[in-house]
Amino acid sequence: MDRTVYLNGAWVAEGDAKVSVFDRGFLFADAIYEVTAIIHGKLVDYPGHLARLKRSLDALGIAMPVAEAELLDLHKEIARRNGIEDGLIYLQVSRGVQDRDFVFPEAMEPTFVMFTQTKKVLDNPKWKTGLSVKTVPEGRWSDRQIKTVQLLYSSLRKTEANRQGYDDVLFVENGHITEASSANFHIVTQEGVLVTRDLSNALLHGITRGSILHLARQADLKVEERAFTPEEAKAASEAFVTSATSFVTPVVKMDGVTIGNGEVGPISRRLLDIYIREQLSAGIPVAD
Amino acid sequence: MDRTVYLNGAWVAEGDAKVSVFDRGFLFADAIYEVTAIIHGKLVDYPGHLARLKRSLDALGIAMPVAEAELLDLHKEIARRNGIEDGLIYLQVSRGVQDRDFVFPEAMEPTFVMFTQTKKVLDNPKWKTGLSVKTVPEGRWSDRQIKTVQLLYSSLRKTEANRQGYDDVLFVENGHITEASSANFHIVTQEGVLVTRDLSNALLHGITRGSILHLARQADLKVEERAFTPEEAKAASEAFVTSATSFVTPVVKMDGVTIGNGEVGPISRRLLDIYIREQLSAGIPVAD
Repeated sequence: MDRTVYLNGAWVAEGDAKVSVFDRGFLFADAIYEVTAIIHGKLVDYPGHLARLKRSLDALGIAMPVAEAELLDLHKEIARRNGIEDGLIYLQVSRGVQDRDFVFPEAMEPTFVMFTQTKKVLDNPKWKTGLSVKTVPEGRWSDRQIKTVQLLYSSLRKTEANRQGYDDVLFVENGHITEASSANFHIVTQEGVLVTRDLSNALLHGITRGSILHLARQADLKVEERAFTPEEAKAASEAFVTSATSFVTPVVKMDGVTIGNGEVGPISRRLLDIYIREQLSAGIPVAD
Repeated sequence: MDRTVYLNGAWVAEGDAKVSVFDRGFLFADAIYEVTAIIHGKLVDYPGHLARLKRSLDALGIAMPVAEAELLDLHKEIARRNGIEDGLIYLQVSRGVQDRDFVFPEAMEPTFVMFTQTKKVLDNPKWKTGLSVKTVPEGRWSDRQIKTVQLLYSSLRKTEANRQGYDDVLFVENGHITEASSANFHIVTQEGVLVTRDLSNALLHGITRGSILHLARQADLKVEERAFTPEEAKAASEAFVTSATSFVTPVVKMDGVTIGNGEVGPISRRLLDIYIREQLSAGIPVAD
């Protein structure tokens, strides 16, 4: 590992990128994060990620660690310093360092870290084969619209599913699917309607989700935002997940049941193509 | 601050006690913890905390970071190095350091940190006045019997309650109280029965809770372990919380309603006295 990490105003070697054990991100999971993809040197859906970052920080009463203009500059600079043309930029803001106490003061100096991950985002083998997923009970906290680092439940269930041969899990609450471990889940009915869970605190308000729904409506697809059951999903003609790191990825099997004909569906494929084309064109370049 | 902290086999100044930003405790809240009190140089309920530590680690598939004998020695040594006769020892074990991924490998080297906090545990002003609490909806994850660092919900709700003039919150789920933000909650009915929530994944299996129930039964109190409502609690003759840091602390007001006569009740007081006496006698001394 030889990445350069941004930490609280300094550029440091990744081996030196360390936070205090008294950081509330470490002791209380009192931190939020964002992940932005880069494809061919373009930041994908950056304005959406910035907007959600501010919403998460507002929800927890944590200050923006840097000004908006500086944040964009940091995204560009960390990509350049790490030679990332295709990959991910991760950022995390925690409330800061305090002697351990459940009660925190009004104003604290946030801890702010950014690092990159190399990933051939546009060369995703699952776009060709699709995902096999399993349903598991929802077990996360009540405020999933806030993008906090309380990711243990998702991580445990996804890891278990992987060891059982599945690619991912779908969480089910009160008989309805909320989302995947770190992606929103959508189906296309036999009538060609795109159905996706409506926004609430039950699920993350995915930036890619929002963009894809916008593109779907532009392409004259009928979109319904409502709760739906695993049975409805298994009877769908297509299913797919959306996320900042995998864009639009088909789901072809669910609890062992083949969805549609078991192959990547035309609507999933078309939305992925349109999305990539748009982001390659409209994405903010990391090189000035 | 000038504490000496134990971190992964080394004794370091607290300002140097830092973990990688790639630690899964920081990125995924993939970590568990324990807090053990020290009173007059004695470790309080140490065997119970050790047993729960092992249960939490087992539940997450994280290895014990050190052997049991060494762990006890570390508790003694950190108390001595920091001159703690009365206070707290906090320990946290995270799954370890890995490039960020929801999926983790079978074997990782855990991160292990211990630090002390000075606290006059036996000089708790709330033992005289009691606590004023408010009920709020339960919103934590589904596996609260595992003592993870996913404490954001508890921390947010307790901080809000403090700013509104309450000492703490009680979480209510499906019409029944689970527990306080970081303590188990108990009532004594008008008939003199100690009622406490039965153990499940809905609440932490408090070590102090277990000890107090044992002492209550020894003292011929009738104990019922079952779910109960906020209304039942408001009609109780006494109420109290138990935790490793506050032992037995009366609750005298709930959502503005006075419990009993609004003063510390005789059963709460008696259980606290018996518990302190027992731990001062049976607790493991930190000085050999």
